Amino acid sequence: MYTASILKKELEASKGNRKLDIRIDNVQLVNVFTREIYPASIGIYNQKIVSVGRVAADADMLIDGGGAYAVPGLIDSHIHIETTLLTPEALGEVIIPWGTTTLCVDAMEIANVAGIEGLLAMIKDSEKLPFRLLLEIPSRVPTAPGLETTGGVLGVEEVTQLLALDEAVSLGELDPSKVLGMKEEYLEKVLASLDRRKICNGHAIGLGVDDLNIYAAGHLSDDHESVYYEELLERLRLGIVPLIREGSSERNVDTLVPGIVEHHIPTDNMMFCTDDKHVNDIYKEGHISYNVKRSIELGMDPVEAIQMATINAARHFRLEDRIGSIAPGRFADILLIDDLHTMKPKMVLKDGRIVADEKGARPVPEKEYPAALFDTVHIGADFSAEKFRLVSGGTRAKCRVIRMIKDQIINQEVLEWMNVKNGEIPADVSRDILKLAVVERYGKNGRVSTALVQGFGLKRGALAASVSHDHHNIVVVGTNDEDMAVCVEKIQELHGGFVSAVDGHVADALALPLGGLMSTLPAKTVMKRMDEMNAAVAAMGCDMKAPFMSLSFISLPTVPELGLTDFGLIDVLGHRIIDMIVETEE
Amino acid sequence: MYTASILKKELEASKGNRKLDIRIDNVQLVNVFTREIYPASIGIYNQKIVSVGRVAADADMLIDGGGAYAVPGLIDSHIHIETTLLTPEALGEVIIPWGTTTLCVDAMEIANVAGIEGLLAMIKDSEKLPFRLLLEIPSRVPTAPGLETTGGVLGVEEVTQLLALDEAVSLGELDPSKVLGMKEEYLEKVLASLDRRKICNGHAIGLGVDDLNIYAAGHLSDDHESVYYEELLERLRLGIVPLIREGSSERNVDTLVPGIVEHHIPTDNMMFCTDDKHVNDIYKEGHISYNVKRSIELGMDPVEAIQMATINAARHFRLEDRIGSIAPGRFADILLIDDLHTMKPKMVLKDGRIVADEKGARPVPEKEYPAALFDTVHIGADFSAEKFRLVSGGTRAKCRVIRMIKDQIINQEVLEWMNVKNGEIPADVSRDILKLAVVERYGKNGRVSTALVQGFGLKRGALAASVSHDHHNIVVVGTNDEDMAVCVEKIQELHGGFVSAVDGHVADALALPLGGLMSTLPAKTVMKRMDEMNAAVAAMGCDMKAPFMSLSFISLPTVPELGLTDFGLIDVLGHRIIDMIVETEE
Repeated sequence: MYTASILKKELEASKGNRKLDIRIDNVQLVNVFTREIYPASIGIYNQKIVSVGRVAADADMLIDGGGAYAVPGLIDSHIHIETTLLTPEALGEVIIPWGTTTLCVDAMEIANVAGIEGLLAMIKDSEKLPFRLLLEIPSRVPTAPGLETTGGVLGVEEVTQLLALDEAVSLGELDPSKVLGMKEEYLEKVLASLDRRKICNGHAIGLGVDDLNIYAAGHLSDDHESVYYEELLERLRLGIVPLIREGSSERNVDTLVPGIVEHHIPTDNMMFCTDDKHVNDIYKEGHISYNVKRSIELGMDPVEAIQMATINAARHFRLEDRIGSIAPGRFADILLIDDLHTMKPKMVLKDGRIVADEKGARPVPEKEYPAALFDTVHIGADFSAEKFRLVSGGTRAKCRVIRMIKDQIINQEVLEWMNVKNGEIPADVSRDILKLAVVERYGKNGRVSTALVQGFGLKRGALAASVSHDHHNIVVVGTNDEDMAVCVEKIQELHGGFVSAVDGHVADALALPLGGLMSTLPAKTVMKRMDEMNAAVAAMGCDMKAPFMSLSFISLPTVPELGLTDFGLIDVLGHRIIDMIVETEE
Repeated sequence: MYTASILKKELEASKGNRKLDIRIDNVQLVNVFTREIYPASIGIYNQKIVSVGRVAADADMLIDGGGAYAVPGLIDSHIHIETTLLTPEALGEVIIPWGTTTLCVDAMEIANVAGIEGLLAMIKDSEKLPFRLLLEIPSRVPTAPGLETTGGVLGVEEVTQLLALDEAVSLGELDPSKVLGMKEEYLEKVLASLDRRKICNGHAIGLGVDDLNIYAAGHLSDDHESVYYEELLERLRLGIVPLIREGSSERNVDTLVPGIVEHHIPTDNMMFCTDDKHVNDIYKEGHISYNVKRSIELGMDPVEAIQMATINAARHFRLEDRIGSIAPGRFADILLIDDLHTMKPKMVLKDGRIVADEKGARPVPEKEYPAALFDTVHIGADFSAEKFRLVSGGTRAKCRVIRMIKDQIINQEVLEWMNVKNGEIPADVSRDILKLAVVERYGKNGRVSTALVQGFGLKRGALAASVSHDHHNIVVVGTNDEDMAVCVEKIQELHGGFVSAVDGHVADALALPLGGLMSTLPAKTVMKRMDEMNAAVAAMGCDMKAPFMSLSFISLPTVPELGLTDFGLIDVLGHRIIDMIVETEE
């Protein structure tokens, strides 16, 4: 706890009457308030920056900056941490060498699996992490109430309780249906956040200006779904702060920054995020550092780009007294960078501790998670291939099929005639119409729904995942029911994971035992294993770059046109369950 | 209380499914996010802006903007409201025609007089005011503990309680001695504000860069005491937000803005305040509108100057979701202005109500204050001129004299030989060395201290005030003890006020019965009466422009070099009581 006596010691250190923990000399300070760059020293005591400028006080550790730029630690304004498949500890080792010292985390995945207890277990002891873990409190757990089974539920009461946490900076992203639909539960969650003087993250995908007006009137503070400059400008005009996203699939810096540069619009209300970025992409090209670097390449002033990654985000979340700048009173989250055009730090400090240097990230302490988080997959012992039968009368059936669109998470509803054999509809590999099933995995009702999907390209076998947005039941796609059942049974055995199977045997499997979402292995191992997993699926005929990722998004009941949950096939825009079979022919 | 069902109605109005209260058409919207100006309509429902752009929905009232600029209501980031001598109701009628719709009020004067109850009484029913009254919770009541008697005391407990108010936006200004002196009580108040996610106002008068480092390390968020551009730059660099002040005496826009314009430094971390501005100055030249107008004259881009008066301040106080812009979800505080170079609104809306138009302010509802606030002057019945005797031995005494400096609140300590007659030291009108006394007025101990002052220029008579910063005991200056006593007795009779007396009779008097600080008369009457009061003092030989204002600041125990409280003569920098008589001659 921060007390007056600790503050007093910090002031004494600031005054030079108490030995500093660290003094960093010989740096070019990147000042995010004045946009100046000038020589300075930095005094650090008890996690804090206590003096900046000419600092002469003695210190336990002296760091010679060697003339490097001193840049505030970078902030990711919106990230779903579970998408990386890593624990926060393992993720830390990947992002920290790239200078991200703060993540604003919407941990809605673990909350859907394990509710408030799961969420609290995830963030417990987060002060030991090499980055600052701030929370965007998940606003929609479940995402599609009444249309899916989830492990956890966060109602108004739970959300209000979580918003009181010191780490909580906002209500997590609300999709348009919740606000434009004016549903009381979500409006109450919005008011609970305002009441705590915290903001509300948005997700205004594809909204036009009329809907954006309602969105802003509903106190949604920001949006990370602008793809075109015109969209960004419309949001900015209405006081909706744009978060410029550069994830693995959604790469918006290149489409947004040139417009910002060309039109000279003020950037003080803009910031950066990744939303969903794969760990191997982070490893190779960088994290928020990449948003900055690429913006500079696209013509933005380097300090302006750094402001977007630091003080702007800090101010948006009302934490500019704690992070986002190198100024007295702020936590000592500091990067030493030789070249702003690469944005590759040679040293990273978080809370006044060196967490990475030229040799990479310092080891991150391991953490114990509660046993319950490793035991979230419960489908029962009596599972069999029978569950995937698609019963139909007649000889042919006209069916709704989920047609995937390459590299996008939206899909199309198409109608296809399927042959009926022995009273059931099998997959039709020749037309790439495969079976897709969702298996309830929380031991609540044992539901299994099966539908048809086009686009995976599998010639044989099946693959399955216990990561399945946002409900995270088991999703499985396959050319035959037996391999699908093998996958599901293996996932149960592993307590969650990614699995592929061919000819009645497991082809490859990666355990994701933490909530059925995350591995407990180090980042490099997970990256290597994912490459191998993908290779196994490619050998089954699938040409997707990230087949397990695509699988984990295809069942989403909130992304048009069709979704699939354990309740059945979902007409997304109609918010209802619909029949897969439209008509049959005798 | 703001509930989900009210929010739902606002969203329905935004969508066009519910009749608007007001629609304003045909305006040029000044967009403080993008710095653009473009044609728009504005829809208002239930105090809020619910739609901006092409608004077609029907409304109870249609306002034709006639092509005027639509500007967000202006924000004064720091004002001591009592200095105007007006009640908030009366002040509203003066500031509202100039477009100030939000005041961030440090009501430390009433708190010094009447404590937490007085403060709460002042802000009660403030939603009926034509401006938004936000509170900077007074951090130093009393200002000089142990050196003065005050009516009220706000300790850590009271401050913490007040910070919980929704209207509370910050801890009010802390002077350097409290922070640099690292006094636990004030550090605890700082932490109490941070704990509520609120900021801490500063007052970094004259500090150099080393002290500013400590100041920032102590979490002081801002400062309104920059006089030179270099001072402003030093503060900005250290993350201390500069408030650019334009009061009646302290006029900083002309010394600061040219540097800002010349050096092109970012202004998103700067804003405007008045601190202390007399009502007749506001009436004649404007309020925050004057800061904006003068900045434009000095070369600042008009929209940038408006940003400083609106969104920048809103963001600083973490209220950008409520005020500071014309965007959906914000309170409808809107000015219609034909010419940005005059900044004189032709219409002012606050919370979606028209509060001023071309005919001036709409009448403000009267308010009843508790009887106790009209009964704060208690000096007892036995008061007499005897109290002002300066007893001395010898024939001459070498005395410390408070020498005033023209147009400044600081003073000098000078040593002067005074004649002793009949065992006491009388005033020496020939050298303009007059008696200055402070009379404890809270009925707590009846203390009276008397000293000597040079600079008032009175040839005869005396003047007195129950406004006496920051303790607000009675301060009186005079050429003779009898007229001084007449003044003090009259102030008691009026329950507070300004009084002048000559030849044993009251010359003129203005009652300030509300806390002994404020009049209950309308603004225009108070202005007229103050002119008359000043004329009476001028007739007594004083050539000061604002003699009562000078009198009310001369006793301050926190402004160097000397102060005077009911405890005695104060050595300000030494924080101690000192003897007035240094030596005597037989």
